[in-house]
Amino acid sequence: MITQRQQVTDMIISAKVLKSIKWSNVAQEVGLSKEWVTSGCLGQMAFNKQQAEKIGQIFDLSDEAVAWLQIVPYKGSLPTSIPTDPLIYRWYEVVSVYGTTIKELIHEEFGDGIMSAIDFSMDIQRENNPNGDRVNVVLSGKFLPYKSY
Amino acid sequence: MITQRQQVTDMIISAKVLKSIKWSNVAQEVGLSKEWVTSGCLGQMAFNKQQAEKIGQIFDLSDEAVAWLQIVPYKGSLPTSIPTDPLIYRWYEVVSVYGTTIKELIHEEFGDGIMSAIDFSMDIQRENNPNGDRVNVVLSGKFLPYKSY
Amino acid sequence: MITQRQQVTDMIISAKVLKSIKWSNVAQEVGLSKEWVTSGCLGQMAFNKQQAEKIGQIFDLSDEAVAWLQIVPYKGSLPTSIPTDPLIYRWYEVVSVYGTTIKELIHEEFGDGIMSAIDFSMDIQRENNPNGDRVNVVLSGKFLPYKSY
Amino acid sequence: MITQRQQVTDMIISAKVLKSIKWSNVAQEVGLSKEWVTSGCLGQMAFNKQQAEKIGQIFDLSDEAVAWLQIVPYKGSLPTSIPTDPLIYRWYEVVSVYGTTIKELIHEEFGDGIMSAIDFSMDIQRENNPNGDRVNVVLSGKFLPYKSY
Amino acid sequence: MITQRQQVTDMIISAKVLKSIKWSNVAQEVGLSKEWVTSGCLGQMAFNKQQAEKIGQIFDLSDEAVAWLQIVPYKGSLPTSIPTDPLIYRWYEVVSVYGTTIKELIHEEFGDGIMSAIDFSMDIQRENNPNGDRVNVVLSGKFLPYKSY
Amino acid sequence: MITQRQQVTDMIISAKVLKSIKWSNVAQEVGLSKEWVTSGCLGQMAFNKQQAEKIGQIFDLSDEAVAWLQIVPYKGSLPTSIPTDPLIYRWYEVVSVYGTTIKELIHEEFGDGIMSAIDFSMDIQRENNPNGDRVNVVLSGKFLPYKSY
Amino acid sequence: MITQRQQVTDMIISAKVLKSIKWSNVAQEVGLSKEWVTSGCLGQMAFNKQQAEKIGQIFDLSDEAVAWLQIVPYKGSLPTSIPTDPLIYRWYEVVSVYGTTIKELIHEEFGDGIMSAIDFSMDIQRENNPNGDRVNVVLSGKFLPYKSY
Amino acid sequence: MITQRQQVTDMIISAKVLKSIKWSNVAQEVGLSKEWVTSGCLGQMAFNKQQAEKIGQIFDLSDEAVAWLQIVPYKGSLPTSIPTDPLIYRWYEVVSVYGTTIKELIHEEFGDGIMSAIDFSMDIQRENNPNGDRVNVVLSGKFLPYKSY
Amino acid sequence: MITQRQQVTDMIISAKVLKSIKWSNVAQEVGLSKEWVTSGCLGQMAFNKQQAEKIGQIFDLSDEAVAWLQIVPYKGSLPTSIPTDPLIYRWYEVVSVYGTTIKELIHEEFGDGIMSAIDFSMDIQRENNPNGDRVNVVLSGKFLPYKSY
Amino acid sequence: MITQRQQVTDMIISAKVLKSIKWSNVAQEVGLSKEWVTSGCLGQMAFNKQQAEKIGQIFDLSDEAVAWLQIVPYKGSLPTSIPTDPLIYRWYEVVSVYGTTIKELIHEEFGDGIMSAIDFSMDIQRENNPNGDRVNVVLSGKFLPYKSY
Repeated sequence: MITQRQQVTDMIISAKVLKSIKWSNVAQEVGLSKEWVTSGCLGQMAFNKQQAEKIGQIFDLSDEAVAWLQIVPYKGSLPTSIPTDPLIYRWYEVVSVYGTTIKELIHEEFGDGIMSAIDFSMDIQRENNPNGDRVNVVLSGKFLPYKSY
Repeated sequence: MITQRQQVTDMIISAKVLKSIKWSNVAQEVGLSKEWVTSGCLGQMAFNKQQAEKIGQIFDLSDEAVAWLQIVPYKGSLPTSIPTDPLIYRWYEVVSVYGTTIKELIHEEFGDGIMSAIDFSMDIQRENNPNGDRVNVVLSGKFLPYKSY
Repeated sequence: MITQRQQVTDMIISAKVLKSIKWSNVAQEVGLSKEWVTSGCLGQMAFNKQQAEKIGQIFDLSDEAVAWLQIVPYKGSLPTSIPTDPLIYRWYEVVSVYGTTIKELIHEEFGDGIMSAIDFSMDIQRENNPNGDRVNVVLSGKFLPYKSY
Repeated sequence: MITQRQQVTDMIISAKVLKSIKWSNVAQEVGLSKEWVTSGCLGQMAFNKQQAEKIGQIFDLSDEAVAWLQIVPYKGSLPTSIPTDPLIYRWYEVVSVYGTTIKELIHEEFGDGIMSAIDFSMDIQRENNPNGDRVNVVLSGKFLPYKSY
Repeated sequence: MITQRQQVTDMIISAKVLKSIKWSNVAQEVGLSKEWVTSGCLGQMAFNKQQAEKIGQIFDLSDEAVAWLQIVPYKGSLPTSIPTDPLIYRWYEVVSVYGTTIKELIHEEFGDGIMSAIDFSMDIQRENNPNGDRVNVVLSGKFLPYKSY
Repeated sequence: MITQRQQVTDMIISAKVLKSIKWSNVAQEVGLSKEWVTSGCLGQMAFNKQQAEKIGQIFDLSDEAVAWLQIVPYKGSLPTSIPTDPLIYRWYEVVSVYGTTIKELIHEEFGDGIMSAIDFSMDIQRENNPNGDRVNVVLSGKFLPYKSY
Repeated sequence: MITQRQQVTDMIISAKVLKSIKWSNVAQEVGLSKEWVTSGCLGQMAFNKQQAEKIGQIFDLSDEAVAWLQIVPYKGSLPTSIPTDPLIYRWYEVVSVYGTTIKELIHEEFGDGIMSAIDFSMDIQRENNPNGDRVNVVLSGKFLPYKSY
Repeated sequence: MITQRQQVTDMIISAKVLKSIKWSNVAQEVGLSKEWVTSGCLGQMAFNKQQAEKIGQIFDLSDEAVAWLQIVPYKGSLPTSIPTDPLIYRWYEVVSVYGTTIKELIHEEFGDGIMSAIDFSMDIQRENNPNGDRVNVVLSGKFLPYKSY
Repeated sequence: MITQRQQVTDMIISAKVLKSIKWSNVAQEVGLSKEWVTSGCLGQMAFNKQQAEKIGQIFDLSDEAVAWLQIVPYKGSLPTSIPTDPLIYRWYEVVSVYGTTIKELIHEEFGDGIMSAIDFSMDIQRENNPNGDRVNVVLSGKFLPYKSY
Repeated sequence: MITQRQQVTDMIISAKVLKSIKWSNVAQEVGLSKEWVTSGCLGQMAFNKQQAEKIGQIFDLSDEAVAWLQIVPYKGSLPTSIPTDPLIYRWYEVVSVYGTTIKELIHEEFGDGIMSAIDFSMDIQRENNPNGDRVNVVLSGKFLPYKSY
């Protein structure tokens, strides 16, 4: 009996390790970005029927698991509010060190409001560099203004 | 007597509001990016002598304050570990929802290691869009591999 | 020297008590809803120049304070992450007890996405009732869908 | 052996996904609002015998599970005190940003007291809107005054 | 400038120590129970005009302070969520050790609902006892049922 | 293998729901107050041999479970330090709002010391009332003075 | 204006450093143990009139401060719930590592109940030892049994 | 498969309850103090081979479990950083209330340094007393000075 | 089904106890430092194929477990953010007590930046010493400067 | 009036910035290591009279401040339990990622016990390296064994 999306994520991760599946290949087969597809496989997004069935084939999932992939999950992928994993912590650190800077500059350009994390996309790329390759990430979020009423 | 960088940040913020100074203009005068200069003014970076004196002129700071701008600060700009401000929270949410995705994709491309938050830069731009303008942010961080020893 | 919006909020609150000003009257003079105007006076919204000057007159604020009212504040009005005040706690309790219900019903109707807290308005009214008057609150937030990309 | 209501909630959720049951249909069959019935199915309310048996039929529950549906549960539906799920967080954010505003306006209208979260109802509706449909939520809670004694 | 009720509480406490005032006498002069009056003096309740003026006389408060006594305060009297003071901790311990017991017995008698902490009173008395005097406390709170809707 | 008292509590709760047992009847059969017996069944008190065997009969427990009922448990019945359940939270709120009041009044009457939570009893009763029935709770705890040495 | 016992503690500490006063001498003059007198000077106990006046003479305190020494303080001497100071942390560690051991052995000897921290005394002594001197601490607390009722 | 010392502690506790074993008898058989042996059985100390085998006989442990008793465990016996159990909490309270006192008096006698919690022993005894028996605990820890370098 | 690296760590630990394997021998067989190899076995590093297979032989792991050893783990080896284990706590204490000192001295020598915890190695050695042997640890981390941009 | 060591630390930091004093020069004048002297200046160690007077001269401190330098401080130099400053966080991360490794290897070499953080010294050096200079830190702590008793 599946009672939480986490169980499906566990099945996907287990199959991925056993079969050496790559996220970028999964994304290609689904026909969407690797960022969105991976976050879906990790239990953060809901797939539509067709996408879920494709994911089910790739990872050999049961029909019940495929049904769960189409349910909106309870989101949040980290076990602690301050992440312990060094790679993810660096992102937390960017928010901590640059948070007020980001706030000031977006407000200076747009006024009061936020950069949406829903109408949002992310693109992660390798940038070759003689001093050591770099990770380049483009975040794009719609600006949503606070309006008086 | 100044005993913490926060006092200098307070002076800068107070002068900024009174004189309607813009961060982008400060950055232009200092000759560096608005992201780095703003984070420095907000107490997260150390300026060199020349930069500090320029900042001092713009915000009418005392010599003591200008000396403090050249001291490496205790970093971290947020009052709580989970930010309450909606704009900054959205960034925390991106880390929470996409954290494991970012981890998987960087490891798939680069192997074990991290994206540096020190050898790092950020560029925030407005993107005009008929469905509502967007905030585009490019993050660039050197990949640092874990090596066995 | 004003270095934080909280100082201006303190001035407003102090004047309000001394002069027995009512939020609904302030709202009327500003020409907007009592909900938005009050949250602005309590340091959660940025006013435009004209609004700020009106607020300044009502509460006898200095020019510096009026300038601060036009700056986007660091939002979040509560001293602890779980509120201790009984009235505000009841709202936290609604989120705790009904949170998953709200999530299920919005997803059932709209699919994956959120109800915006930015493109959002609130209206608080008294409802006369023979069994004891009731507080009626209407919350209206734009639905923002997660989209695949 | 069932030892916690959560186990019954798990059974309900599991059956719901497998059989594509809709909360609004469950509510209709039970003859009450979708908000109250859903919160009960999610383990936050106690059903009476007749309601519990109806729920039991819909979700194919054992007699033991049906008995548990009639027991008052330990309430609180969220795994962390600050919710990580974006939809639910937006509600937490409303409490954080507007909490003091709600407090001021209810006190201005009613004096000292609270808006009950027990003698309380909620109604969630879609509002069609050319700029994007909206979620409209009406919260109704009895005002309970603090009285001197 | 008074900006928080805490400042008035400080004035009251300071005067109380200097003048050796007793809470029971204050209550007598105000004509209400010692429990309610003390909690008001400690910043947890709002007084009406006449009560506030009487309190003002007893503790030699300024008009501004007397005005503040009539404002509904942000409630919650403890500096930490788990109290460190041994006397208050014992009450927290009662909630921790007997919390589920209280819940079971009230539900067994009344069904689903709560014992109100708003429509509530408390009476603290000394009970002489040859084995050592006892503190007897009577708590009385209206039962508020959850109702289906 | 039973390794924690919680397992026995689970068995008791499970049997109670299946057999519709009432705490007040259990107490009657054991011959003690419903408050103490219930807290014992919920894993907060140790029973003597005779009491444990009686409890064992009522709930059909194994000999091992009956042995565990006679072991002093690790006390504390709540899953979080600030309870999420509304009924129990109201008691936490009483401690939060009235904590300093209780402290002041007990010290005024008794001097420095505490009201014991060990040499302690509690009695919960329904009080019929035309404005809605009330929960009346009498707490009785021995006063224990701090003594100089 | 003194509004908290902490201010008096600050005065005592400040005078102690300036005048090189020793706690053991203070205790001798007051005629009680160094443990109790020191904890009182550090704001954890209430002195009687005579003791407070003696303390006042030793540390040159104002009459207002002497009055405060006779008021029961809000107890708890540490700034964080897990102490950062190494000497005090070692005591916290003893509770963490040996806590369940202490519980088991006291229950084995006495049955269910606690060792009082109110009817309690402490004696700290140096023990000369060729392998390095030792700190010997004797804690004595009355056993308080839980009784059924 | 045993993967954590906690599993062995569970086996010991389970056997102890079933067979009514006393810690003091275990200690006698092992030939060491009841404090050290109990803390070892509760998973806080490592036994040598001979001690482990003796413990294994007493509690009927498997060879694998006996092997685990000889492994240094991850120490810390409490489920929360502030203990909820009343007996153990009283010790936490002693640290909280007397922590700064202990610090002052040890420093006054010994200078800067700590009382070791490693080169440490504890002895718990019953003291008969007409006013109620007392728990007497002697803690002995080597003083370790901070030295300049 | 293996779904988390922790399961593989459990298998390794279990085999290590049963077979009395030493980390230093494992490291020798793998041909790398004991520090890096141990942290990998404890689930903090990813092994390459050859290393993983060697580890698999030593600890008798399944092919699935060996596959998991080559996956980058979610790092962070401690169950609480402030470690309870005395040995590990002493390291936390070093960070707490000497943290600002380390920061000042590295900045004095190198300017703004950090000591990498990724391009990092550690070497732990016993130092014989007549006053008691010492643990000597050498930490080596690349200095990474913050650069303006 | 100085009431806390932090005030003296503030004076030292303020003078250091104004006069561009280097910690290594202070250490040289005091005649001890830069690590110990800096930690003392930052409020973590107690100086003897001669050292304190030398520090007083260097930083132009008052006699009262010099007296405070000789008092054992309440230790712990960080404002949050998980440090936000990137340089200090990296050390916290080392404890988090390598904590269990350090524990295993010290126990393998020495048996049960700890590496002292009191009988401890630290030496921080720059290591020139063509791939980027490194920070080398040697930590030396006495091994303290747990002994049975």
